[in-house]
Amino acid sequence: MYEHRSRRRVEFADTDMAGIVHFSRFFVFMEAAEHAFLRALGTSVHFEHEGRTIGWPRIEAQCRYHSPARLDDELEVVVSVARKGRRSVTWGFRILCGDRLVAEGRIATICCAIGGKGTDGKSVLEPIPIPSFLADQLEEAPRVVQEVPA
Amino acid sequence: MYEHRSRRRVEFADTDMAGIVHFSRFFVFMEAAEHAFLRALGTSVHFEHEGRTIGWPRIEAQCRYHSPARLDDELEVVVSVARKGRRSVTWGFRILCGDRLVAEGRIATICCAIGGKGTDGKSVLEPIPIPSFLADQLEEAPRVVQEVPA
Amino acid sequence: MYEHRSRRRVEFADTDMAGIVHFSRFFVFMEAAEHAFLRALGTSVHFEHEGRTIGWPRIEAQCRYHSPARLDDELEVVVSVARKGRRSVTWGFRILCGDRLVAEGRIATICCAIGGKGTDGKSVLEPIPIPSFLADQLEEAPRVVQEVPA
Amino acid sequence: MYEHRSRRRVEFADTDMAGIVHFSRFFVFMEAAEHAFLRALGTSVHFEHEGRTIGWPRIEAQCRYHSPARLDDELEVVVSVARKGRRSVTWGFRILCGDRLVAEGRIATICCAIGGKGTDGKSVLEPIPIPSFLADQLEEAPRVVQEVPA
Repeated sequence: MYEHRSRRRVEFADTDMAGIVHFSRFFVFMEAAEHAFLRALGTSVHFEHEGRTIGWPRIEAQCRYHSPARLDDELEVVVSVARKGRRSVTWGFRILCGDRLVAEGRIATICCAIGGKGTDGKSVLEPIPIPSFLADQLEEAPRVVQEVPA
Repeated sequence: MYEHRSRRRVEFADTDMAGIVHFSRFFVFMEAAEHAFLRALGTSVHFEHEGRTIGWPRIEAQCRYHSPARLDDELEVVVSVARKGRRSVTWGFRILCGDRLVAEGRIATICCAIGGKGTDGKSVLEPIPIPSFLADQLEEAPRVVQEVPA
Repeated sequence: MYEHRSRRRVEFADTDMAGIVHFSRFFVFMEAAEHAFLRALGTSVHFEHEGRTIGWPRIEAQCRYHSPARLDDELEVVVSVARKGRRSVTWGFRILCGDRLVAEGRIATICCAIGGKGTDGKSVLEPIPIPSFLADQLEEAPRVVQEVPA
Repeated sequence: MYEHRSRRRVEFADTDMAGIVHFSRFFVFMEAAEHAFLRALGTSVHFEHEGRTIGWPRIEAQCRYHSPARLDDELEVVVSVARKGRRSVTWGFRILCGDRLVAEGRIATICCAIGGKGTDGKSVLEPIPIPSFLADQLEEAPRVVQEVPA
């Protein structure tokens, strides 16, 4: 599996007073597509693994806006693995409306065990190696995917 | 303390393509004002009490829209206790822009201990009596509040 | 057509720190389902009609929360016409996760022509009779739909 | 005026099921701070200028997450001009919680006249030079800002 494609329709609540999708919403679109990719790989963004909850906090997110998206537009979100490290994955995204490129983005995430509480009573995020069942599948994705510049 | 007033400015991300605040955002405005009220009473919407985390899941929410709010409008959100039960509080809200009534709403919440996990592995919400330190303060709030300045 | 059913999956961004869907998001879910209904009727929530833009500002919204929805839950949103007036429609909603009732709600909307600018330079919303091509179709929906109390 | 500082408190609706502020919300925080900066300069993000509406669509947005923000945290958002072109401004942001760096970001915007409708009936965004009354003020801001108190 080299890339994953999911579709979503622009909703009224995605728009702003400029009549187009608010720029912050594209990050939600990208994240939802990332999670659809993880589901397609048989996992989830929050899952139990060897007695711990594994999550993927974001360390960086970026988006370039090429053309506006509007109410009722049917968007296709294409996800690929832009970079895979031992404890991290950077996802690459292209958001299309038909043939038109709407946005391109990238989200860098780090694999963490969530749990326990720190001395301040807050839950602790501990970076861990990506569980092998998942790492192996991501390995199948080429690190550089054509037409998805990082 | 009979009612609590907080202020917020309408942000671009609050608006939709009709050029006004999206109707769902008023629920966020109301909730934030409720939490400001709780902070003013010395507590929080999520707090530790006798070794458990206490939260206030919503059981009903309602809003009537009287006039639109627009970018940069300075809104005043007035919170009062509409009804107080042993385990529940219904908050009443008026949202004003200057003298103009923008919206009125109501959020019914129930006091719950959050924690442990159920047989399905999901966290359990157990309704409990409102802790007395808080119940006593809410008791002070008249059920119908009229023009009482903060 | 008596009711319309649409499906959506709970996304990470729909959740809050209590681990469940934030209560304000259900209003977005309901609105999106209403718009899917309108699309199924051959129209849209914002459309041009006889040279004017027609929109449906909300005058009231209400939701009762029966059970929590969580990440990845597949929700079904059932929309029906709870009340149809000459210039207004009140939509009724049930949100289900499988057989489990998650929430019930209602959104009252008013048919408006949007356009021109008022003396304050802001766009004007003028209530108008529902265009007949749409009113006729909505008439087909029974005013009281079984198992959808208003 | 070299940089602008605004404050906001993390709200419940900003959080996600990981118990921290959802990464997409930081873009809203940054945008709101940008708009506060524009207000401090005597303008707005949407304003009338020589008979046209001027807006600032985003062409790129980026954020690095250094440490999580949680419910009730009081954040300070520091805005400066990272780059000023003839028709564009790139804003730089630092988000702090006390002395702790929470996030750093950047939003590239382009000055556009909004209005008229294109051949497809959609409103047109035409890039234009930044109006001089605003360009002059932004010129005053150094491109690299270091520890300059508000």
